[in-house]
Amino acid sequence: MSRYFSDKYKKLVPYVPGEQPKDRRYIKLNTNESPFPPSPLAQEMARRAADGLNLYSDPRCRDLVKAAAEHFGIDKDEILFTNGSDEILNFAFMAFCDADHPAVFPDITYGFYPVFADINSVPYETVPLNDDFTIDVEAFIGVDRTVFIANPNAPTGLALPLADIERIVASNPGNVVVIDEAYVDFGGESAVELIHKYDNLLVTQTFSKSRSMAGARLGFGIGCKELISDLNAVKYSINPYNVNSVTAAAGIGSFKDDEYFKSCCKAVSDTREWTADSLRALGFTVLDSKANFVFASSPEIGGKELYSRLRERGVLVRHFDAPRIREYNRITIGSPEQMRALIGTIKTILEDIR
Amino acid sequence: MSRYFSDKYKKLVPYVPGEQPKDRRYIKLNTNESPFPPSPLAQEMARRAADGLNLYSDPRCRDLVKAAAEHFGIDKDEILFTNGSDEILNFAFMAFCDADHPAVFPDITYGFYPVFADINSVPYETVPLNDDFTIDVEAFIGVDRTVFIANPNAPTGLALPLADIERIVASNPGNVVVIDEAYVDFGGESAVELIHKYDNLLVTQTFSKSRSMAGARLGFGIGCKELISDLNAVKYSINPYNVNSVTAAAGIGSFKDDEYFKSCCKAVSDTREWTADSLRALGFTVLDSKANFVFASSPEIGGKELYSRLRERGVLVRHFDAPRIREYNRITIGSPEQMRALIGTIKTILEDIR
Repeated sequence: MSRYFSDKYKKLVPYVPGEQPKDRRYIKLNTNESPFPPSPLAQEMARRAADGLNLYSDPRCRDLVKAAAEHFGIDKDEILFTNGSDEILNFAFMAFCDADHPAVFPDITYGFYPVFADINSVPYETVPLNDDFTIDVEAFIGVDRTVFIANPNAPTGLALPLADIERIVASNPGNVVVIDEAYVDFGGESAVELIHKYDNLLVTQTFSKSRSMAGARLGFGIGCKELISDLNAVKYSINPYNVNSVTAAAGIGSFKDDEYFKSCCKAVSDTREWTADSLRALGFTVLDSKANFVFASSPEIGGKELYSRLRERGVLVRHFDAPRIREYNRITIGSPEQMRALIGTIKTILEDIR
Repeated sequence: MSRYFSDKYKKLVPYVPGEQPKDRRYIKLNTNESPFPPSPLAQEMARRAADGLNLYSDPRCRDLVKAAAEHFGIDKDEILFTNGSDEILNFAFMAFCDADHPAVFPDITYGFYPVFADINSVPYETVPLNDDFTIDVEAFIGVDRTVFIANPNAPTGLALPLADIERIVASNPGNVVVIDEAYVDFGGESAVELIHKYDNLLVTQTFSKSRSMAGARLGFGIGCKELISDLNAVKYSINPYNVNSVTAAAGIGSFKDDEYFKSCCKAVSDTREWTADSLRALGFTVLDSKANFVFASSPEIGGKELYSRLRERGVLVRHFDAPRIREYNRITIGSPEQMRALIGTIKTILEDIR
């Protein structure tokens, strides 16, 4: 830290992304990436866009917005694209939270929410998950704060039914409710259709998981045009050209290749069920995930020890050393081959310690 | 605006990017883009990176940082890459400015500085340019505020000698001095070499102009490792994966193709001198630009009228309707063909009104 760093940030605890070691080749199941490449059409459009990089990207992302509006059946002024969904989440903390509108989210959820709150000097409270790791819906009814809920939640993978989301939105008309649907395409119910019914609902999604474009950095928010207008005011005060041309082109390709998108989502969901069954057969407790990962613990080996032993054997998973969840690991669903290797490695580890 | 927008932003006046009309094909000389494509090596590396987009980009940009450290002769912890240089500038306003460290910059400069100040609730003062549009260096000596100076300045194109920059940095040891070198490669003197002498100097640059990569969104800051550490704390609290994989790969290609880079810079500088001479021959006042644009006014036609008449004829330049400069237009240096077309069009316009 320099002596010039503003006092207001001196106590920041930044987010820690999943590790990306380069010391050897790993089976990488730690950052919820897709095992598939982006759609061939997305790749082709990305390659073509690489020619015209001398010109600025379109700050309004007009072609991408058009493709998205068609895809979701919304108006063009009801969506805003960002440099990954972290950026739209940060914009939402900026635009819709302050001392008079503190934030609230589950105690166990995407670890970036408290970081966004802190850097924006937003007070926040957390609501403990129920004992079965489901979200305590009743605690969010009429909570009178700006709500952030990941649905499906991370790192649990558990999803709330749309009816519960609607109750939370409807019961908080004085605050924005942000539903973070990073993982919705693997079996959750999206709240996008509700944006025409509630002016306080913002739905965020990402291209990083189901659209196989984590490296391209593309996310978005969908809400009524007034909310989107507020978020645009923030964007144009920070980084108008926030989405680059290649990524915008790839995004269009992804929307236009819906068959590929659906086949990837189905393949991941099928592999997830196989993985969950295989882990249960080995004695693991596995939550009922609707995401592209499973959250699992074994009665035979501690969460951190399993993480370490897998890492030694070239398999990376994500372990959170936090209360209530430290016996679990979050395991990304990769290809069938990768998951067979994972299960084989876990078998070996369990045999070693038995 | 929604009723949920935080009071603190209700008076925001966002930045207005240069227009990007799509109604017809324009000779586009309004946003200081390069007329050349990115280096062939940069394009090739970008295309190759499009295959692996399913994996997250490296938040530390290790390969890109390595290439940059070699290029500039600095250590790897003395540089931070961002999603365009707007992002590093915003990070600097966040990290190094607050009520106790207000900002100061020239009254006529990059129009985003006051916007960054406002969105971060940073108080600021402006220092009027001298009558000849040069920066009033003495006013920044010991000014005891966080200084932002674009060198060369925009939209004037005028550059300060390195000795003046050093005097400003040396005389403000209690505050960070940010030198925004977006345009330095076209004839200015970079302050990068001073970062090892002063711990309060942050130099920012961009790939948008001299490296022909405006559409890729890549900028960076260079400073002592403590400043870079502070900026990283901000980055990891907002958007750790802020640079996408394709752009990072293209950036490496650009650094490695130094010959192409230098030839583009020389071509633009040569064309700039031809353009300035041609405008002067038509009676224009043209400032002595060291950037990839010229700032020019005619005694025969108002700035706004010239802008409008050029636009009608398919040539876009940038006009700022602000005190002291509204008789001027900022004209990007394009290809020799584009500039011949510009001069020809201006001749026609002047003949029409004579």
